[in-house]
Amino acid sequence: MRDRNAPVGVFDSGIGGLTVAREIMRQTPGERIVYFGDTARLPYGSKSQETILRYSRQIVRFLNTQRVKAIVVACNTASAYALDELEKETDIPMIGVIRPGARTAAASSANGRIGVIGTEGTIASGIYTRYIEAIDPKIKITGKACPLFVPLVEEGLWQDPVTDEIARRYLGELIDIGIDTLILGCTHYPLIRSTVGKIMGDKVTLVNPAYETARELKALLKERDMENDEKPGILDDRYRFYVSDAAEKFKRFANSIIKYGILSARAVNIEEY
Amino acid sequence: MRDRNAPVGVFDSGIGGLTVAREIMRQTPGERIVYFGDTARLPYGSKSQETILRYSRQIVRFLNTQRVKAIVVACNTASAYALDELEKETDIPMIGVIRPGARTAAASSANGRIGVIGTEGTIASGIYTRYIEAIDPKIKITGKACPLFVPLVEEGLWQDPVTDEIARRYLGELIDIGIDTLILGCTHYPLIRSTVGKIMGDKVTLVNPAYETARELKALLKERDMENDEKPGILDDRYRFYVSDAAEKFKRFANSIIKYGILSARAVNIEEY
Repeated sequence: MRDRNAPVGVFDSGIGGLTVAREIMRQTPGERIVYFGDTARLPYGSKSQETILRYSRQIVRFLNTQRVKAIVVACNTASAYALDELEKETDIPMIGVIRPGARTAAASSANGRIGVIGTEGTIASGIYTRYIEAIDPKIKITGKACPLFVPLVEEGLWQDPVTDEIARRYLGELIDIGIDTLILGCTHYPLIRSTVGKIMGDKVTLVNPAYETARELKALLKERDMENDEKPGILDDRYRFYVSDAAEKFKRFANSIIKYGILSARAVNIEEY
Repeated sequence: MRDRNAPVGVFDSGIGGLTVAREIMRQTPGERIVYFGDTARLPYGSKSQETILRYSRQIVRFLNTQRVKAIVVACNTASAYALDELEKETDIPMIGVIRPGARTAAASSANGRIGVIGTEGTIASGIYTRYIEAIDPKIKITGKACPLFVPLVEEGLWQDPVTDEIARRYLGELIDIGIDTLILGCTHYPLIRSTVGKIMGDKVTLVNPAYETARELKALLKERDMENDEKPGILDDRYRFYVSDAAEKFKRFANSIIKYGILSARAVNIEEY
């Protein structure tokens, strides 16, 4: 077993997983984090299972060189396509973003109608449906791919009439179906949570898998007696960020999401792992 | 020198280069084409020069295994970042999409004010500016990155109020500057040419580098006496499509662009080249 003061590895196709890292920072402020964003090969949402698995394996190998004590797959597509395989191949605990969100949604829904929004890859995988049905087969889950949400978020249009209009088109059918719970099944979506909430209305509960995943990580570390027990160190040392490309751009975006700011993001040639 | 009846290699980060392949099919219907779309690693527009060069080299190695007689870099980002290097490393003729568009724009502008729209990578590279200034240093070129155009095109919103609104925001400053010529500096953009044309108005000439590139290829093959002289064969044999991922999705999109339809798109693990 690895050192309890080793970092938690967090990875995503790019910047979206920063919303998960942010929740981990909030909920377990004592933990070190090594974050990897696969910015050279993003987005994962429209790519095939085989490709996502190959990419994820390379990243897990890289994170293992950083001696992480646990890995959070902070990407819905990689959680959907690669987590089951990765768990078989690695001996450190791994948490994806899907199971925690699915569990919370199943517990939250009163009328048994749940919606899931995400990238094409996540929705096509049907993974949320499988997880929720395993909990309660009577629940009806409706998935809706929203391919424009990620570029709109990355363009900074978090609150904008164009994002409202696109959201109205994507979400219309979920409103018609009468869902009472909606899973934000892509790590970018917490950033347009207010737009989605406005369109869905007060009666629909929004489930944020980033929040639920950080909770699950906290419980896991506690249960296995693996919580970091160092005295809080300086930020620069505690959180390390790596990307496969364009570290400067990543840093700029990260600084709009993570309030502490990011001091540096180092570039890694991930194809070598 | 390679066989005159060998195929022309055409590559892009994904589907955008199909607008260039389409022009080659129209202008030189006798030529065979091997198309490669790097769908596993798209988009190129937001990635760094180093990464784009690494990817482009792999693709050129792959195309050389197909014994192509010439290569068209049907991607603005790869043309901007990699073409000069690739030309030094390869002995077959290469054509990018930037030089032909730059030349036509310089010849077309009467008032010496030219606009260029493209991805972040293409605009940040300043490549159109350099090429046009080399032709006529008095011309003033203004670049504008339009990151949402590609996802809007890929979502099929070629004619849509949302695309109109985003286009108005992006193009406003180019209208204010009083450009008389606008280069569609991304291979996706010919598909929203009518939207862009409507907003820019009749007095602005739109330059489509896909068209100009196919013209340049035609001239080059003629000049070097390398035109295909076979009798027209069947389509299946004449045009071959390869992708690094998700061949089915590529096929679907390709069939909306290329009127002949695409019979098959084979998957290649490009990281092995």
